[in-house]
Amino acid sequence: MSVEESFAKLCMNETPPSGAVAVKSLVFKPKTAKTATPVPVVVIALHTTNTPSGVVALESGSKDPRLARDELFASFFKCETAKKFTLAHLKNAESPISVLIDDQLVNIDDSTVLQLNDELSIKKDSLFEYLKDFESSSKIVNFAQEVKKEEPKKKAPQAQANAAIEDAKLIGITVDKALDFPGWYSQVLTKGEMLDYYDVSGCYILRPPSYAIWEAIQKYFDAKIKGLGVQNAYFPMFVSSRVLEKEKDHIEGFAPEVAWVTKAGQSELEEPIAIRPTSETVMYPYYAKWIQSYRDLPLKLNQWNSVVRWEFKHPQPFLRTREFLWQEGHTVFLNEKEAQEEVLQILDFYAGVYEELLAVPVVKGKKTEKEKFAGGDFTTTVEGYIPQTGRGIQGATSHHLGQNFSKMFNLSVENPLGPDHPKIFAYQNSWGLSTRVIGVMVMIHSDNKGLVIPPRVSQFQAVVVPVGITKKTSEEQRKKIHEAARDVESRLKKSDVRAFGDYNDNYTPGWKFAQYELKGIPLRVEMGPKDIEESQVTVVRRNDSRKYTVKLSELESRIPEIMDEMHHDLYEKAKESFDTHRVIVNEWKDFVPALNKKNVILAPWCGVMECEEDIKEGSAKKDDGEEFEQDDKAPSMGAKSLCIPFEQPELAAGQKCVKCDREAKQYCMFGRSY
Amino acid sequence: MSVEESFAKLCMNETPPSGAVAVKSLVFKPKTAKTATPVPVVVIALHTTNTPSGVVALESGSKDPRLARDELFASFFKCETAKKFTLAHLKNAESPISVLIDDQLVNIDDSTVLQLNDELSIKKDSLFEYLKDFESSSKIVNFAQEVKKEEPKKKAPQAQANAAIEDAKLIGITVDKALDFPGWYSQVLTKGEMLDYYDVSGCYILRPPSYAIWEAIQKYFDAKIKGLGVQNAYFPMFVSSRVLEKEKDHIEGFAPEVAWVTKAGQSELEEPIAIRPTSETVMYPYYAKWIQSYRDLPLKLNQWNSVVRWEFKHPQPFLRTREFLWQEGHTVFLNEKEAQEEVLQILDFYAGVYEELLAVPVVKGKKTEKEKFAGGDFTTTVEGYIPQTGRGIQGATSHHLGQNFSKMFNLSVENPLGPDHPKIFAYQNSWGLSTRVIGVMVMIHSDNKGLVIPPRVSQFQAVVVPVGITKKTSEEQRKKIHEAARDVESRLKKSDVRAFGDYNDNYTPGWKFAQYELKGIPLRVEMGPKDIEESQVTVVRRNDSRKYTVKLSELESRIPEIMDEMHHDLYEKAKESFDTHRVIVNEWKDFVPALNKKNVILAPWCGVMECEEDIKEGSAKKDDGEEFEQDDKAPSMGAKSLCIPFEQPELAAGQKCVKCDREAKQYCMFGRSY
Repeated sequence: MSVEESFAKLCMNETPPSGAVAVKSLVFKPKTAKTATPVPVVVIALHTTNTPSGVVALESGSKDPRLARDELFASFFKCETAKKFTLAHLKNAESPISVLIDDQLVNIDDSTVLQLNDELSIKKDSLFEYLKDFESSSKIVNFAQEVKKEEPKKKAPQAQANAAIEDAKLIGITVDKALDFPGWYSQVLTKGEMLDYYDVSGCYILRPPSYAIWEAIQKYFDAKIKGLGVQNAYFPMFVSSRVLEKEKDHIEGFAPEVAWVTKAGQSELEEPIAIRPTSETVMYPYYAKWIQSYRDLPLKLNQWNSVVRWEFKHPQPFLRTREFLWQEGHTVFLNEKEAQEEVLQILDFYAGVYEELLAVPVVKGKKTEKEKFAGGDFTTTVEGYIPQTGRGIQGATSHHLGQNFSKMFNLSVENPLGPDHPKIFAYQNSWGLSTRVIGVMVMIHSDNKGLVIPPRVSQFQAVVVPVGITKKTSEEQRKKIHEAARDVESRLKKSDVRAFGDYNDNYTPGWKFAQYELKGIPLRVEMGPKDIEESQVTVVRRNDSRKYTVKLSELESRIPEIMDEMHHDLYEKAKESFDTHRVIVNEWKDFVPALNKKNVILAPWCGVMECEEDIKEGSAKKDDGEEFEQDDKAPSMGAKSLCIPFEQPELAAGQKCVKCDREAKQYCMFGRSY
Repeated sequence: MSVEESFAKLCMNETPPSGAVAVKSLVFKPKTAKTATPVPVVVIALHTTNTPSGVVALESGSKDPRLARDELFASFFKCETAKKFTLAHLKNAESPISVLIDDQLVNIDDSTVLQLNDELSIKKDSLFEYLKDFESSSKIVNFAQEVKKEEPKKKAPQAQANAAIEDAKLIGITVDKALDFPGWYSQVLTKGEMLDYYDVSGCYILRPPSYAIWEAIQKYFDAKIKGLGVQNAYFPMFVSSRVLEKEKDHIEGFAPEVAWVTKAGQSELEEPIAIRPTSETVMYPYYAKWIQSYRDLPLKLNQWNSVVRWEFKHPQPFLRTREFLWQEGHTVFLNEKEAQEEVLQILDFYAGVYEELLAVPVVKGKKTEKEKFAGGDFTTTVEGYIPQTGRGIQGATSHHLGQNFSKMFNLSVENPLGPDHPKIFAYQNSWGLSTRVIGVMVMIHSDNKGLVIPPRVSQFQAVVVPVGITKKTSEEQRKKIHEAARDVESRLKKSDVRAFGDYNDNYTPGWKFAQYELKGIPLRVEMGPKDIEESQVTVVRRNDSRKYTVKLSELESRIPEIMDEMHHDLYEKAKESFDTHRVIVNEWKDFVPALNKKNVILAPWCGVMECEEDIKEGSAKKDDGEEFEQDDKAPSMGAKSLCIPFEQPELAAGQKCVKCDREAKQYCMFGRSY
């Protein structure tokens, strides 16, 4: 009996009822290395379900799936053409296939009649009975999910095709960081289980490994600011339009991105209510109310919350998201000097988050007038660098608002010198650090094996794995190894190392190693027969596979040391990369070529806003014929000013601006940027 | 020169220009004890600004302000009638007045001409120059703010009038907890600086003292759940309508309260997006994706976030707010027993938050079918009691969802026994605790002097105040007292007591005492001449003014002991109140009278839903003529089932249900409730 015949027996031999539901089956062929056999993806879905190839790719873990041609149907399913294909032919497949089943179909009532084509109808439960044979390669899929991934770069099809890592296991990272950076970034985050894409575009799920990093940052930063007398508070996420729009310069920057609530239940609200994009205008009316005297100053509040900026640009996990977690500090001082000192103090804490916790080097500096926070006096920033794209990235900003907001919101107090002296408008700061830091950290340290998470922020710092157990190992010896491993785990935990063990005998050590490398666990601690003999463990660092032998007697002291060394090495490696790609350019002719070599640039600059715009425009043109990194967001992105670094190269006397004829006032750091 | 004449000189002696802006000045008289002189409130506002008396009351700190009659104008401002009153007459006031200035008026351009009445126009800057003389009693006010306060109770005008605390200083609480509970609650929160009202109705600002309590709760509970292997994560606040509406029973309960975002910047969204009212339907589609095998179970995630429920009922700070902070745990198990054990374990943690941290007694039990979480199998709860209103209050709930959601979202795994055994739909729990706990704590412990905050959660635990310094005190002695006090503060801090000192010589100790009593600081530590002599401090507990003398040599050990005793005493006092107002009622005739005596009731009950509804209806009628607590929200509120307590009174054999003829199955706790 042919597969067609046996399948037909499962089907109904009567006209389908009027309530029958149309079902489609589609076959996709993924892009595959020429030497490999493709794994076709069969999609079984309600006719009404849209099955975008992006979802097919994500859910089947395959690359660039396209609707298959007749050749594939013939060779895989012994079915002459695509048109003749039915689910019967699945049984003809001799090499692996992948089956994606529409969850809408799964949820349909069991007794529903499904119409497969003009001739074949089948009850839902019969179909699923039939599909059981393919259960091991099947997956139920929500096709309505939105898949956000940077589009493949248009300029480098060759690089793209070669980006697949040839020997990558399906479970691991399948694209090369150096060749397809956006594809790699997306995979490393999702396969490393840090983050998942979400069905509202531009929003992402922070899974425990990334949220734990955020918690580590919170703990560090919160203690620092409380040491300065900052107190935490919580202001509502909603803002009335009247309040939101009070400070005009300020709101101008945010207005196009504000999300508006206009309805509750079935009722239209009388007035739309905004979701905060930041809280200056939310908080300051109340500051004005609370601050009745100079004795109420300084007032220093911070909140850990989420804000919403409905960006219409291309979203990117952690870096550009419509909702993100951050802290926002808002402080008020009686005098300017004290306020400005705090701005820099906070900036140091931000640099500390990057350098002390995330092992990411940053450059501290001041934003230009063009790039500063709208409505403030000046903005300080920590700027990072992403080597693969050669772009700068703003790390966190600390703003001195001067008296601009205090005048707008009447944040004033009587002069401490007495009522016959003029009243004083307070001096304000605001400062914020967001979950963007996690994206920067991942981009910088992680590699083709997966995540690399610096030990100070990693949810787990060490995984203990028993090794060297083979079929020949006696049960007694196996037990001994396991017990020794468990003992190591327990000792590590007691000494506050965030350790866990994997004692599952169903998986090989090699499989486990790959798993924990994918997830970026900083240290792997192996316990095998030889280790037992020598009273030691073998420790392997995630970042560079460097091996250490640690005597059990020194376990509690050495493991923290190794983590510190690892932190240090991660930092130094990233710093070297930043340092060598931060080049001094004094002449405009060298500017774009240096940029195109993935550098950020320190250039003497006049400080004039129009000149800054000229630099951006002038560096956007590919006028030198060199090939350089392309980007969807800005195919010929010009260089922005990143900051005027506090640490300045010496400016030669009479040095001209890199772009115009004016005299240079200082060196400014320029670069393409996120 | 009369005040009218000198004011007229400031005004313009020409016809006002067409762009002149009309300004009104209104005088309010607050309700004042007969023996006291009222402080009139003068409101100066744009003619177009609505100046509700609620805002006037809140901002001037006065009670029930009403537009003043001619008598007041004559006696205070030497102006015959209200009609003749102008701002000129302010200068005639001989006793204190309070001036509220519309912030819209403040923000108007300085050169604007203001038209005060048919005859008087004045430039804005001249007016403000004139008003400077009243600066010390002036305040700039946002009249557009929404003031949320329970309306005065209609049933008890007599009680209301007497609720003003006769000797309350203006700065302190001016209403009696026993006589005007809602008014007292609002004052104690705002004057104690825990919370402020916000200009979006139903939303409130959590100021540092309340947020610090939340942080203490987070620290406690987070450690407990992490001990169970729960991990924190963060899911987006937005939900697509398709996902939100997946579980019908569940969403039915929330749909009328869901806030919808329909617009971003100037663009209408293609599809409205909801703000999460809770995250079951947000999270479970991803759980289904992540859980691929029984080895992925249990999955235990928690998030600390805010949720939005746009209630149209009367909002109340902490208890019923449109946005609130909470934690929501969502866990998935392979087997039912393990899941159900966790439900109870979490409930114990919730009881711990109330009893160990907040010194609030609760009753643990199970919700009836009518009151359980829609879509779940059963709900467990901790229930509290508010003595002033005699109402029960739900403290926190821990739900066992059974397989309802797992079937809906296809959260299933292959049977560990093998593929020939049926696949298993997972067993799920969800559990949540919100900032409501803070409201319960305030209602129970605080008093007519202000907040009483239990020491384990208070942002500050002790304030050190130098005392006994008079004009006769030598400078040397003054210094000695200050130094000794600072030394005590520093020793307390070192021993992890959250202490601070108030060394400001401009305020008397009495004034300070009142301040810190208002704010609920648990311990006041006084250092005076006698204390120095005796090497001791005098410690006063906030809750009952009990005094201790503590030898300096025992400072570090005794202060924590005193705080523990205070915690214990707060708890015992509240427990006694709850215990004596939780009465057993077996006969229906005693039910409503017991309820009306501000009790919650333990009654034998049949367990039938219709009977529960009968009980509610039957107890809603004021059919016994007794007077009882009225409530705006439900003027004749019936008793709901609060829970079926785990700790059960013994049920007599053959005991009938309190309401119907069926046999009782257990005792159920009923009460009027929040």
